[in-house]
Amino acid sequence: MSTNTSSSTRIEELRNTFQKRSQDIFRDFFTFLAFPSISSEPSFKPQVQACADWLSDYLRKMGFTVELWPTSGHPTIFASHMQAGSDKPTILIYNHYDVQPVDPLPEWLSPPFEPIIRDGQIFARGAQDNKGQCFYTIQALKTMLELNKRFPVNIKLCIEGEEECGSSGLSKIIPQKREALKADYLAVVDLGIPAENRPSITLGLRGLITLDVEVQGSTTDLHSGCHGGLAYNPIHALTELLASLRDSSGKITVPGFYDDVENINAKEKALLSLAFNAQEYMESFGTKATGGEKAFSPNERAWLRPTLEINGISGGYSGSGFKTVIPAKAYAKISCRLVPNQDPQKIGKLIADYLEKKAPEGIKVKVTVRPGQGKALRTKASSEVAKAFAQAYSEVFQTNCEYIFEGASIPIIPELAAASQSEVVLVGLGLPDDCIHAPNEHFGVDRFEQGFLSMIRALEILGKKV
Amino acid sequence: MSTNTSSSTRIEELRNTFQKRSQDIFRDFFTFLAFPSISSEPSFKPQVQACADWLSDYLRKMGFTVELWPTSGHPTIFASHMQAGSDKPTILIYNHYDVQPVDPLPEWLSPPFEPIIRDGQIFARGAQDNKGQCFYTIQALKTMLELNKRFPVNIKLCIEGEEECGSSGLSKIIPQKREALKADYLAVVDLGIPAENRPSITLGLRGLITLDVEVQGSTTDLHSGCHGGLAYNPIHALTELLASLRDSSGKITVPGFYDDVENINAKEKALLSLAFNAQEYMESFGTKATGGEKAFSPNERAWLRPTLEINGISGGYSGSGFKTVIPAKAYAKISCRLVPNQDPQKIGKLIADYLEKKAPEGIKVKVTVRPGQGKALRTKASSEVAKAFAQAYSEVFQTNCEYIFEGASIPIIPELAAASQSEVVLVGLGLPDDCIHAPNEHFGVDRFEQGFLSMIRALEILGKKV
Repeated sequence: MSTNTSSSTRIEELRNTFQKRSQDIFRDFFTFLAFPSISSEPSFKPQVQACADWLSDYLRKMGFTVELWPTSGHPTIFASHMQAGSDKPTILIYNHYDVQPVDPLPEWLSPPFEPIIRDGQIFARGAQDNKGQCFYTIQALKTMLELNKRFPVNIKLCIEGEEECGSSGLSKIIPQKREALKADYLAVVDLGIPAENRPSITLGLRGLITLDVEVQGSTTDLHSGCHGGLAYNPIHALTELLASLRDSSGKITVPGFYDDVENINAKEKALLSLAFNAQEYMESFGTKATGGEKAFSPNERAWLRPTLEINGISGGYSGSGFKTVIPAKAYAKISCRLVPNQDPQKIGKLIADYLEKKAPEGIKVKVTVRPGQGKALRTKASSEVAKAFAQAYSEVFQTNCEYIFEGASIPIIPELAAASQSEVVLVGLGLPDDCIHAPNEHFGVDRFEQGFLSMIRALEILGKKV
Repeated sequence: MSTNTSSSTRIEELRNTFQKRSQDIFRDFFTFLAFPSISSEPSFKPQVQACADWLSDYLRKMGFTVELWPTSGHPTIFASHMQAGSDKPTILIYNHYDVQPVDPLPEWLSPPFEPIIRDGQIFARGAQDNKGQCFYTIQALKTMLELNKRFPVNIKLCIEGEEECGSSGLSKIIPQKREALKADYLAVVDLGIPAENRPSITLGLRGLITLDVEVQGSTTDLHSGCHGGLAYNPIHALTELLASLRDSSGKITVPGFYDDVENINAKEKALLSLAFNAQEYMESFGTKATGGEKAFSPNERAWLRPTLEINGISGGYSGSGFKTVIPAKAYAKISCRLVPNQDPQKIGKLIADYLEKKAPEGIKVKVTVRPGQGKALRTKASSEVAKAFAQAYSEVFQTNCEYIFEGASIPIIPELAAASQSEVVLVGLGLPDDCIHAPNEHFGVDRFEQGFLSMIRALEILGKKV
């Protein structure tokens, strides 16, 4: 443990500061959460914009220079505070203010955009991903400015509005924003820890590619009595096609899918907490971790191996009652998580070709590879910024920082890292059972505070080191 | 051809009568069609009742004795007119006033409950199935009564309100209504012909069993990045289970599924028009008839073989955009068409057992065998009632009547036939491309008239024969 008495005292000071300010902090946080900033649904465009405007104003009032970068989709908030001195490093902090859709809405115990605290957890869409992690960062910065009038390092914030739908707007403007984004470090505050009080640095993200599948039989819906046995039911075709994407060992059968997979080196692997608590998984999610490739351990499957998941399927009648229909069309949405060296576009095309070629006679298959692709990313535990966060976490949590991987993707990060020419650190305090992307998303009040404390300490440590 | 001069003259007389009355007939028909009497959706209960009330009044004003039989679901209209004399036979005519749901609503070119005539076709939900065929029957009866004050045979009408959702209400009260339903003949006016101007008598219906499948993985939706490779995606499980229900030859793989299948005898088979026009099928439906068991011809597959169809599938996110979710649950609706000697309940249980046993580790499968089951039915071409309709059709269409089967089911008919102790005939003028159970359902103005003429002539012929 690298903590000592002086750092303990500092943490206590900061904790008191947080407690004193907490009423204002949570009032503003709830305002932020109340914006239904669902980026993937075009009908929510005005609400996404309203959220961006509110947050820009908030940062401006704090003392940041704020630009709202228009994109082909939702705007990116870019804010900077560069008065630490030219001898101090610059850290670019990445967050996003957009959120996932909320359906199935009936499963929410309280409305997703009316935040509420129950049992020490803040429930709302975005409570964790990413408004929660964004807002403890902003509150850390606000507090530092109010107490010291300045930061120990130069700060740039990049808070985008399309992370949940592929970041295509930001991706397109990055080439013109290289100078603005330039930084020594890039801290991505959108990650998690494996369990409560186990602070961790994430050493990699998987890449992502998403596809839409449309299967068509007849030109109009048919009566399944009159046409059953005649028409090839597109739902049957779809289930056959999708089921054929893996074999009985869980391996993905698309030819070439694994060809470019770069395995992790032994040194990095040795650093990882690869142990998996099956009992805890069952208690948290009510199911066994039986998905993926049987030949690999659970955390390898979740972190280091590529996947193929069906994220949505629809066709025919799904209401109450019954309708004896053979629909004209059926649909699926597929995503793959990718590992280093797999090219998203190439993988998308392999899957599209495979499905289209396998279409049975009488069935047309159309696969669209969507935007929102991103390569996998790996980062170093030995960078200055990773060491600063590791130390901050150790101080706040009074325990050693662990090293993990993240199975999910933030497709824009590799692009942002390249444009800003910075060393990346992936941090955050999400928990696996925060129900992000699901009904009843929540974030702990305690973790909001821990995030606040860690952010301040990491920036202080980073300011001293250089 | 059995037509002669006198019958031609009679048809011309009736045709003129229809033309004179057509404005009133279609005004009343459009009122009938405007009721959204969707029986399978509980929220439409008041509209189903309103439709039953309106039709009951209509029949009462015509001179029928009308009872509205309450059931566990929607009421059955029972109407009788028994003044032909005790030496005359009694015919029970079956129709239904309920209709299928209308989704996908955006695909309708005009609102489903605002009937409209385009290119000689009446477009509305129920225009054919079964309000159209019900209403030309009623108009035939109305005209006969107005012209002659009496019928050549005794008439009973059974017009139910739950045909599209399994007839469970009528099924339950049939044992108490045996006396009321008693008849010499049962004419089911809910069938079709293979093409325009090819009048046909249907010699059999397939049976039906329907099932709901629910597949559950985790207790809550999961993020497909964090859990992809860990959780067993229930959509994957569902596609694997459903795909496994048939082999590559189209044969259904559920053990025991074909055990009780009774094949049609050679004499009946010789009577059938088994030829199938692949070109016409492609033109009508935009697809090849590649579904079902490859070992059988198209019309055998559509009429004489049992089927298993997935009528609905859903799970995960299907809106616009994308959501990287592994849902907690996924769902499917399955129906089977059955042939004589297959027991619906037994087949349902075989499928349920098969799917539940095949559930992969980490996935719970729950299959519910629904009500709405019915056995298959076969009828005789040689019965008096079949011969009367065959002659009537020949006269109206000026061509020989053909013999076909129907792949669809009217599950209540075998029960109704047994209770009424009657000889069944299956008639009607539906066409395969009327889009029943689909958007833009329609029925030809010409066929409405042909149905009207055929019904009057069939009853006249039946009245003379005995």
